[in-house]
Amino acid sequence: MKRLNQPFLGAAYYPEDWPAEQVDGDIALMLRAGMKVMRIGEFAWSRMEPEEGSYDWAWLHRVVNKLGKAGIAVIMCTPTCTPPAWLSQKHPEILAVNDQGIPAQHGARRHACPTNPIYRKYVRRIVSRMGKEFGRDANIIGWQIDNELYPYGKRGCCCAHCQDTYRNQLRKQFGSVAALNQAWGTNLWSQTYNDFSQVPLPPRADTWHHPSLLTSWMQFQSRAYVDFSNYQADILHKYTRKPVGTDMMPYGALNYYDVHRKLDIVQFNHYNSMENLWESSFWMDLCRSLKERPFWNTETATCWNGSTMANGVKKPGFNRVNSWMPIALGGEANLYWLWRAHWSGQELMHGSVVSSCGRPLHIFDEVREVANGFSQAGEFLSSTRPSNSGLALHFSGLAYSMFEFQPMVAGFNYLEKLKNSIYRPLIRAQFRPDVIDPAADLDAYRLLLSPFLPTLEEAKFADKVLEWVRAGGTWVVGPLSDIRTREACKYTHAPYGHLEAWTKIVCRYELPGAPADYQVRWNEGSSALGSVWYDGLEPRGAEVLALYADGPLAGLAAAVRQRIGQGQIVVLGTLPREQELVNLIGTLGREVDILPYAGASPNLLVVPRSGENAAGLVAIELENQPARLPLERLAVDLLSGELCSGEVAMPPYSVRVLQYDLQPFTNE
Amino acid sequence: MKRLNQPFLGAAYYPEDWPAEQVDGDIALMLRAGMKVMRIGEFAWSRMEPEEGSYDWAWLHRVVNKLGKAGIAVIMCTPTCTPPAWLSQKHPEILAVNDQGIPAQHGARRHACPTNPIYRKYVRRIVSRMGKEFGRDANIIGWQIDNELYPYGKRGCCCAHCQDTYRNQLRKQFGSVAALNQAWGTNLWSQTYNDFSQVPLPPRADTWHHPSLLTSWMQFQSRAYVDFSNYQADILHKYTRKPVGTDMMPYGALNYYDVHRKLDIVQFNHYNSMENLWESSFWMDLCRSLKERPFWNTETATCWNGSTMANGVKKPGFNRVNSWMPIALGGEANLYWLWRAHWSGQELMHGSVVSSCGRPLHIFDEVREVANGFSQAGEFLSSTRPSNSGLALHFSGLAYSMFEFQPMVAGFNYLEKLKNSIYRPLIRAQFRPDVIDPAADLDAYRLLLSPFLPTLEEAKFADKVLEWVRAGGTWVVGPLSDIRTREACKYTHAPYGHLEAWTKIVCRYELPGAPADYQVRWNEGSSALGSVWYDGLEPRGAEVLALYADGPLAGLAAAVRQRIGQGQIVVLGTLPREQELVNLIGTLGREVDILPYAGASPNLLVVPRSGENAAGLVAIELENQPARLPLERLAVDLLSGELCSGEVAMPPYSVRVLQYDLQPFTNE
Amino acid sequence: MKRLNQPFLGAAYYPEDWPAEQVDGDIALMLRAGMKVMRIGEFAWSRMEPEEGSYDWAWLHRVVNKLGKAGIAVIMCTPTCTPPAWLSQKHPEILAVNDQGIPAQHGARRHACPTNPIYRKYVRRIVSRMGKEFGRDANIIGWQIDNELYPYGKRGCCCAHCQDTYRNQLRKQFGSVAALNQAWGTNLWSQTYNDFSQVPLPPRADTWHHPSLLTSWMQFQSRAYVDFSNYQADILHKYTRKPVGTDMMPYGALNYYDVHRKLDIVQFNHYNSMENLWESSFWMDLCRSLKERPFWNTETATCWNGSTMANGVKKPGFNRVNSWMPIALGGEANLYWLWRAHWSGQELMHGSVVSSCGRPLHIFDEVREVANGFSQAGEFLSSTRPSNSGLALHFSGLAYSMFEFQPMVAGFNYLEKLKNSIYRPLIRAQFRPDVIDPAADLDAYRLLLSPFLPTLEEAKFADKVLEWVRAGGTWVVGPLSDIRTREACKYTHAPYGHLEAWTKIVCRYELPGAPADYQVRWNEGSSALGSVWYDGLEPRGAEVLALYADGPLAGLAAAVRQRIGQGQIVVLGTLPREQELVNLIGTLGREVDILPYAGASPNLLVVPRSGENAAGLVAIELENQPARLPLERLAVDLLSGELCSGEVAMPPYSVRVLQYDLQPFTNE
Repeated sequence: MKRLNQPFLGAAYYPEDWPAEQVDGDIALMLRAGMKVMRIGEFAWSRMEPEEGSYDWAWLHRVVNKLGKAGIAVIMCTPTCTPPAWLSQKHPEILAVNDQGIPAQHGARRHACPTNPIYRKYVRRIVSRMGKEFGRDANIIGWQIDNELYPYGKRGCCCAHCQDTYRNQLRKQFGSVAALNQAWGTNLWSQTYNDFSQVPLPPRADTWHHPSLLTSWMQFQSRAYVDFSNYQADILHKYTRKPVGTDMMPYGALNYYDVHRKLDIVQFNHYNSMENLWESSFWMDLCRSLKERPFWNTETATCWNGSTMANGVKKPGFNRVNSWMPIALGGEANLYWLWRAHWSGQELMHGSVVSSCGRPLHIFDEVREVANGFSQAGEFLSSTRPSNSGLALHFSGLAYSMFEFQPMVAGFNYLEKLKNSIYRPLIRAQFRPDVIDPAADLDAYRLLLSPFLPTLEEAKFADKVLEWVRAGGTWVVGPLSDIRTREACKYTHAPYGHLEAWTKIVCRYELPGAPADYQVRWNEGSSALGSVWYDGLEPRGAEVLALYADGPLAGLAAAVRQRIGQGQIVVLGTLPREQELVNLIGTLGREVDILPYAGASPNLLVVPRSGENAAGLVAIELENQPARLPLERLAVDLLSGELCSGEVAMPPYSVRVLQYDLQPFTNE
Repeated sequence: MKRLNQPFLGAAYYPEDWPAEQVDGDIALMLRAGMKVMRIGEFAWSRMEPEEGSYDWAWLHRVVNKLGKAGIAVIMCTPTCTPPAWLSQKHPEILAVNDQGIPAQHGARRHACPTNPIYRKYVRRIVSRMGKEFGRDANIIGWQIDNELYPYGKRGCCCAHCQDTYRNQLRKQFGSVAALNQAWGTNLWSQTYNDFSQVPLPPRADTWHHPSLLTSWMQFQSRAYVDFSNYQADILHKYTRKPVGTDMMPYGALNYYDVHRKLDIVQFNHYNSMENLWESSFWMDLCRSLKERPFWNTETATCWNGSTMANGVKKPGFNRVNSWMPIALGGEANLYWLWRAHWSGQELMHGSVVSSCGRPLHIFDEVREVANGFSQAGEFLSSTRPSNSGLALHFSGLAYSMFEFQPMVAGFNYLEKLKNSIYRPLIRAQFRPDVIDPAADLDAYRLLLSPFLPTLEEAKFADKVLEWVRAGGTWVVGPLSDIRTREACKYTHAPYGHLEAWTKIVCRYELPGAPADYQVRWNEGSSALGSVWYDGLEPRGAEVLALYADGPLAGLAAAVRQRIGQGQIVVLGTLPREQELVNLIGTLGREVDILPYAGASPNLLVVPRSGENAAGLVAIELENQPARLPLERLAVDLLSGELCSGEVAMPPYSVRVLQYDLQPFTNE
Repeated sequence: MKRLNQPFLGAAYYPEDWPAEQVDGDIALMLRAGMKVMRIGEFAWSRMEPEEGSYDWAWLHRVVNKLGKAGIAVIMCTPTCTPPAWLSQKHPEILAVNDQGIPAQHGARRHACPTNPIYRKYVRRIVSRMGKEFGRDANIIGWQIDNELYPYGKRGCCCAHCQDTYRNQLRKQFGSVAALNQAWGTNLWSQTYNDFSQVPLPPRADTWHHPSLLTSWMQFQSRAYVDFSNYQADILHKYTRKPVGTDMMPYGALNYYDVHRKLDIVQFNHYNSMENLWESSFWMDLCRSLKERPFWNTETATCWNGSTMANGVKKPGFNRVNSWMPIALGGEANLYWLWRAHWSGQELMHGSVVSSCGRPLHIFDEVREVANGFSQAGEFLSSTRPSNSGLALHFSGLAYSMFEFQPMVAGFNYLEKLKNSIYRPLIRAQFRPDVIDPAADLDAYRLLLSPFLPTLEEAKFADKVLEWVRAGGTWVVGPLSDIRTREACKYTHAPYGHLEAWTKIVCRYELPGAPADYQVRWNEGSSALGSVWYDGLEPRGAEVLALYADGPLAGLAAAVRQRIGQGQIVVLGTLPREQELVNLIGTLGREVDILPYAGASPNLLVVPRSGENAAGLVAIELENQPARLPLERLAVDLLSGELCSGEVAMPPYSVRVLQYDLQPFTNE
């Protein structure tokens, strides 16, 4: 079995679109560029099965073999994202249907329903055939299922089959319609259902629907796509021992924890801009935490994103740091989309490594530099992993759905707020959190943040977290956490489902923020406006960490801490300003030996790494600005060969791979 | 028969959504808050009739009785706004249909067609049953029909039944299709109809339709909802002698004059913000003028509006002034929406008096203060009424429809302009107009303003106003008035339908304003830009009040006055600036003894009140700023017990109820 | 045959909408205004054929005859833009269908499908009848087909008939589906068609379709409307010898070159504002170049545009210059829309010459002044034509479609960029280009600009231009030119289809611009940012005109010149700034004796004219600012009678018609 023993660079390759005789020239260029892997097959169903039941694999074997001979591995993709025209024509019932009842039109991609049995039958056939043909091919190092799975349109696929499937799941979940009525609170607006057949499906986007119904329906949509991925994974696992994954995008409506239960490897696509490059690290901190196995960054642009138009070329150096990020953060591959620019179609203006006519792009040298860097630092990188910091931050797909359909306070966007107001302050302060799902195990962590986590009722999280706290964990929870049932309703005994009982505090008043915001005075001395939401807390014996200083809540607590067993719960009644958040996590972190990398510039991504025989760090400058990196130990930069110590300068868009306790060498 | 002998505070209550055993606790809290009335039943059809023909009234009687025992009255609502799921399922033909032919989806509210006979049958059944059950209940002080009636979607309900009804009304109105063709002017664009069946129905919003058709269709929609209200009123009047109303919103497409012909009481819902609180007084000046009987403010928020998200919490004191406004302006009740916050559903984030878990909100004390104030000032308030000022301002539902489909000048919004550029300057100058429909009687008025009233042909207004002018009335008309027929077409003999004949003036040129505007020099000395529209008038013997000073109309009159009989007509060719408008109304007012309350700050709402045995005023500060109120007589503030005279300071968001010629007392 | 021997003023007249007895009064006013022609019949189908097969021509003959007696000519229009209600009712299948499959609703205009055979049958009948009735009428000077032909909705008419027609054209164009697959590049996304029936039609706007399909479909739509125009032209040509045209709007999706192949005269409607009045000259430079025969400006507003609302009144003098523009630029008529304002309907607020009630508008005197000016300068104007400058600029309908569906770089709008960044700098520098289609003959030109012309494969342009260059032409091409095949795909052998082979240059790198832009250093000394797009060129022997000074292309050429035969090709790799563009065209122009009118203010439109016996120029001030016009020869202003020489002052919105070598006279 083929193994690449160092981080590797690659790209998406579409040989189905080019003359067979061009492969050799492409390979020569790939070798020049330092490419180690090509990702192929993704959309090529009509070349694999030009007519129903008639297969053509010769062209694909030839490409795989030629690549193999050149030492370039392959990631093979199932082409199910683009069922061919003959299939849409013969079976229009496979087309996804939007919330207005209008079927998708053939002509783009992602046009099939994930649950449709006829589509599934054709999927089974093509995937099985691929498995037979390529499952044991030594040059294939892994598999990708479909492409960028995500609920269709505004409400996912709304076809009759999906509706039936959902209704059956409701029956199974609730047992009786009375139980559903009770769980969702349907007495208002005469919404009581006498029968499951009355649940209005699909919940149209032009209708003001019950948020419990909408949340439930979109959770079903996520499950439907997970099930579709599982369906293919089961087939592929029969034919291959190579890792199977599915390439996912930085979106919220598909539950990434669920989708990876059956998968072997995490694959991730991102197309961030110069402005929001840091957001990629949020997703990579999530990718890393999903599996032990290093993830693959399956898609990113070399120099500009585009479809039928190019969007904003990136500056020199961007490709360098963008290519290094997944490697630094625990991945082992970075693949560009795409190798050779398309000469036609919906994405013909996307940036690439070489142009449609086979000419290297202006970033070609930057690509080679990255490839060389991966080689030079390969041994260190493959023998170390990002050090676990003991700090975790929750991101929940269920929370995403709940907030989508009940934002609770005007302007609130869960994912944006989580990234911008929690995650970003932490990483700029050089904390290195894992981003985890509430279903994830907590054993590896000593400090856990759960802001904006409306329900604790998913995946038995409430029991788990309480046990973990009792055993010594420090849990920072709120604002807007523990305020909804599993079915997206409020509790009626208290604002919180569990926190009052666990901590003995009482939430006296709840107030929305924005535009009105209130002063919070922190014990540590500083004072600043809170934001988003305001719970006014009576401590009832808990330690007060912050008090409201004005407004209707003046004198009530804005943040409290309660010791429970060996651990503690910190309840935040409002969202602190960046500085106060970092102070708080700093204080709590010190208690459990979680320390940020001290003194590094905030525009620097610093990832300490450790392994059995080596230690060091990767540092990447993310904002095209100068930065400074203090070192406490002597280290060698494996890219430049420099010996580094003290405060090291990091030029804009630079990367250093620093190994401790190594002799300097000359870089050739 | 139960009577509340003073202004009263109340709230919407949804016992259908809470355990029966919770009522007692709620009542205890209501009494603490000073609640005198609960509004119930509004959406509870599925609790009243869980399955077709099977009724459950026990729970509702129990609540009404318990409230009654506690001294809390009830306003009972028909639940027809939310036909239950079993009805939508059995008779999907009752669902309202939008202009694209798409039926409403069950799951929200207001989803039924107002004219559908099957829906009407079910409405008759449930309303009759309610009437039988509760029509003679002594604790019920009044009835509300449905909730917030308003045309569905962009074009009202467009179902086949509505189309047929409308077409029949057209046949009846015009007699022959030739008459319709003539009235609408269909010769252009080959729009001539050979037959009523060719009238394109429904007039889709995606088609560039004839404005006469659109205006006519939306007038039909208004009638359809009026008819639906009448249908229920007729039923209720069989079973009860308590006043019947329907709670209406501050919108324009339902004709509020028409809807109240059969109703006994005006009910009004509003959710104004801190910024536009003053607009509520426009609507309340309309509510007061619709009926002799004091109106009920049936809904308003205590502290924030919300649906699945909270929108902008209001500052301390807002609840005070917002609660007092309807009482000051001639209402006798203020009810909050809602008593206890919902725990689920589409509106679970709306502000309330107590939270979903029964905890008082931060504004609870402000609510109690208002309740106390109503008691203290109750005798004075219930023995006086806002003094009629003799001044009236027209608001016409027909004008609203005409301008919606022919704004005449880019950017013109009838209701916004009427409120912001006419009404607001008047009330900031302390005039106290009634806001009336052109169908309303004019006997009570000496000065009448009719800006933006495109047609005089509704409700025989032309004859009426001329007679009223001859008898001594002063009528200020224009700009954009008397320029359309009843069917929304221009006159062809002159720009005005009547004004040239009545006043002998000639309109030489008509010019749209915006962005170009022109200087107007007023006789009184000031000079300022006009706005919106410019008619250049030749006085031909009329008195010139203002001349254009530049532009193509320079030298023509911008405003003229013509004496007719005992009265006069003032024609405005353009919309004056705020200051000139106030000067003009001041001058004209003085001639007919209509005087503003002199010297009060513009941010103050000052409402003089008088009765057989008492006189005084209510003053409310609307903008959270300090204000000054000069008093010409000694008065006692019934809320504070203070004796007031001279210039009285009004703090931000303060209220004073000042009774003249009363001995001071100590407020306990 | 009636001839008007000088430029003439006219208007659209809708006698179908007014009482017969009003015609005389209208004619009296027309004579006062100086009207020489009325355009009638445009939408009057229901008055011509009130019921199927029953015709009424009497009213129309009467109007034509009365006008004729008064010396006012007529342009007769076919009313096919507004099929009457009886036709839509009897044959709803004639209604155009949008891309969602929804038929147009009767009630507006342009609601019929251009290819529908039933509609065509009725069109043939009414047009033939009109031809018989009026084809030989001596008072009719020309015909207009339909009104403002343009593809329906977002994707033109998408009815089954249009789909079939298109599919048949595809079959004919490509012969086999394999050829189509090859031409469009359908291998990606499994888009390969096994059969023409699989081409997804209509290509819905809500689906992410292949740009080649979209471009091809919209070219079909253009052909469908051209064919519809031809269909009517063929009929009319049987009955009349007067020129036949169709009035077109300044839009891009109908190919104006194609539509005029069968037509005799160019007719143009425009409604420009004070801000973009200069854009009219772009379209008039195109109108003039389409036919030898002087074009007619068939519609423009006197003082404001409007529908159900008036949009922005224009300042005094605008009507003067707006009326003179078409005359200056090679037209012989200017017609207002409309004579008398409508009294009802969708356009009742549009500006006119007289109001709905027959009163002259405030611009009436300006209209008369223009009419007088046309008379005074008539002999000169009708005996001269705008001098051909030898300079041409390409505008391509195919390019328009290609860029609509693949803008290539974010924010790029072909028509806006062509007008604002190429055409406007040229005319402000006083160049006088023809605007021509790639299908147009090049013999008259010495300098040709082809920016943003993605394909050279239309109308055998590639062969033609190369031959023209070899024969001495100077061709300035790029950026974004020669980079697509006829079917909207990229070339795969080189970035350019032809330019590398022709000029020997090599395009090393291609880079999108915006937001990143790069410095270009021009040989002539100046240095400025380029824009839109950046091709980095290796000259390989060509002359370098400009080099990139920074960024990834630093050192590569931004503009090169290659001599070929007697001529030369100048390739632009980026779009120069206005100043550098003008410098370049100035330099190249001097080489081929193309010189701008030197020294005139940029806000002046200066149109040199020449004829057998006279020469001179028309100068129009376009921006309501003062301007200066230097004269090298003595000239008389035919409007004022002034003798002019040296630097002549042009007041804001003034017009001068200057004839050289004429004795001064006194203007009465």
